[in-house]
Amino acid sequence: MSFIKDMRKYLQLFNEYLASVPLAEQEPKNLYEPVSYVLSFGGKRIRPVLAMIACEMFGGKAEDVLPQATGIEIFHNFTLLHDDVMDNADMRRGNDTVHKKWNTNTAILSGDAMLILAYRYIAVGQKEKLPALLESFNRTALGVCEGQQYDMDFEKQQTVTLREYLEMIRLKTAVLIAGALDIGAIMGGASPEAREHLQEYGTNIGLAFQLQDDLLDLYGDEKTFGKKIGSDIIEKKKTFLWIKAQELLTPEGRISLRNAIDTADIAGVRKVYDSINIKEHCQEEIQKYYEKSLSTLKQLPNSTALENFSKELTLRIA
Amino acid sequence: MSFIKDMRKYLQLFNEYLASVPLAEQEPKNLYEPVSYVLSFGGKRIRPVLAMIACEMFGGKAEDVLPQATGIEIFHNFTLLHDDVMDNADMRRGNDTVHKKWNTNTAILSGDAMLILAYRYIAVGQKEKLPALLESFNRTALGVCEGQQYDMDFEKQQTVTLREYLEMIRLKTAVLIAGALDIGAIMGGASPEAREHLQEYGTNIGLAFQLQDDLLDLYGDEKTFGKKIGSDIIEKKKTFLWIKAQELLTPEGRISLRNAIDTADIAGVRKVYDSINIKEHCQEEIQKYYEKSLSTLKQLPNSTALENFSKELTLRIA
Repeated sequence: MSFIKDMRKYLQLFNEYLASVPLAEQEPKNLYEPVSYVLSFGGKRIRPVLAMIACEMFGGKAEDVLPQATGIEIFHNFTLLHDDVMDNADMRRGNDTVHKKWNTNTAILSGDAMLILAYRYIAVGQKEKLPALLESFNRTALGVCEGQQYDMDFEKQQTVTLREYLEMIRLKTAVLIAGALDIGAIMGGASPEAREHLQEYGTNIGLAFQLQDDLLDLYGDEKTFGKKIGSDIIEKKKTFLWIKAQELLTPEGRISLRNAIDTADIAGVRKVYDSINIKEHCQEEIQKYYEKSLSTLKQLPNSTALENFSKELTLRIA
Repeated sequence: MSFIKDMRKYLQLFNEYLASVPLAEQEPKNLYEPVSYVLSFGGKRIRPVLAMIACEMFGGKAEDVLPQATGIEIFHNFTLLHDDVMDNADMRRGNDTVHKKWNTNTAILSGDAMLILAYRYIAVGQKEKLPALLESFNRTALGVCEGQQYDMDFEKQQTVTLREYLEMIRLKTAVLIAGALDIGAIMGGASPEAREHLQEYGTNIGLAFQLQDDLLDLYGDEKTFGKKIGSDIIEKKKTFLWIKAQELLTPEGRISLRNAIDTADIAGVRKVYDSINIKEHCQEEIQKYYEKSLSTLKQLPNSTALENFSKELTLRIA
């Protein structure tokens, strides 16, 4: 992802700050070691980078928002940690998950500690901006939990409408992208109007990001994507691809799809999806949110970095 | 507990406020219903009452601290909810636990939402006091997690010293009692010195409270105590009673105790404990922390309510 190249300055700044956070040495070891372990997985650090970009857009320095960016990244990793427990997932970014390496109780409790640590970093050094930061972060964090609950609810539902699905991924994924930008905007001194525009941008690009993820799950390259191709199919997730297929397939096609999913026949699923051009439908939807995101940027100052971010995101293969 | 009678004013105020909190109707239902279910169990509401008392001690009104008291009570119930998952406990205050009534994933996620809601209530309507409130609450919340981790670590240790045990219950129980008082003191406008004295009081009375709990587990009356007598023995918990017994028993006595515990023979355990006057040793320790708590109160204004609280607590049978 060439985004990473452009954003190297932010990424380096952030990773240096994160490395200075004294977690691994704290007692009790069984509480803090998993926290430090999870944070060491790396990842694209998209959310902290967005917080730094947003802060600079309104005249702040990227450095100003480092503790808050850390809070957001800790929160993001907390959600992955607890999600992995709930999904009973063994691997995360090529590493054993915490509940696999330690145990479920450790994963629950270390996750709880991460959520508290996230709040601690959001608050570092803040007075006047603290009410706005907390209001924004609370809303974001609760939204993500709501999204995760809808995601779990959907697993038990026979069917899910596209509208319901988009609302779920808005909460589960886009809200945190928007929240990271909002935290950066607050630290940079943005007006309430600018914050609203920026969150609209974040919501749209967050939706595009998640739809791209749905697409890459089946049409990506395992090596660059970093996850097993077809995991959504194996987990029987009702993603955009599946929901759109329900709409477009004939009754016979739906039966073929169900059989392919039930036998975890990934090539079979792809064949059904290809017959109704699901890939193109998904790309169209991504394009829609991508363009929405760009049009919102017109109302914001110094938006080149985010424009590039939008572009890179829709081209991403990882 | 006649404390409840004296404190009826606070309790009523708090329960009225809590009843007005709109949780049950929020969406998604599977996220918020468990939260509202857990909060409806009631309980003694000791922590919110303490926050209200502390606020009044420094010239504030009990009403001023109601949102923050709610945040503390939500946090307390969050810890019970996640602890019950970790302990695989089926019952809490006579009700099915959330993971029993719903499932483990719901219990994890609703707990996460409660932790976020706790922060939301801590922050309600606050600006100038927010940095102090958050600093205090973050420290408290992280301390409770550390205490829970030590508690889990101790289960796997062959032996635990009295010193280690006291540090564990200080973190797991006393820190939240002290934290509730501190939040009240901040809202009442207490000086940093007064806050420190009050937290020392809270720590000591919190330790007395937990030791009383250890004692009641075996020597309490099931009807008034509300929990099954001897559950600590059945769960093989290393409580004050067990640790003190290791110190006082002969090698033969330790074998008798181990056998009684291994066969869940509660009467047998009591017989061994009675032979070395464990009850009296525990009461002595409680008395020590009780007196410490009273002596700290001398340095604080309007401390009658807390004096009564201390007295009632050491006399409590529930």
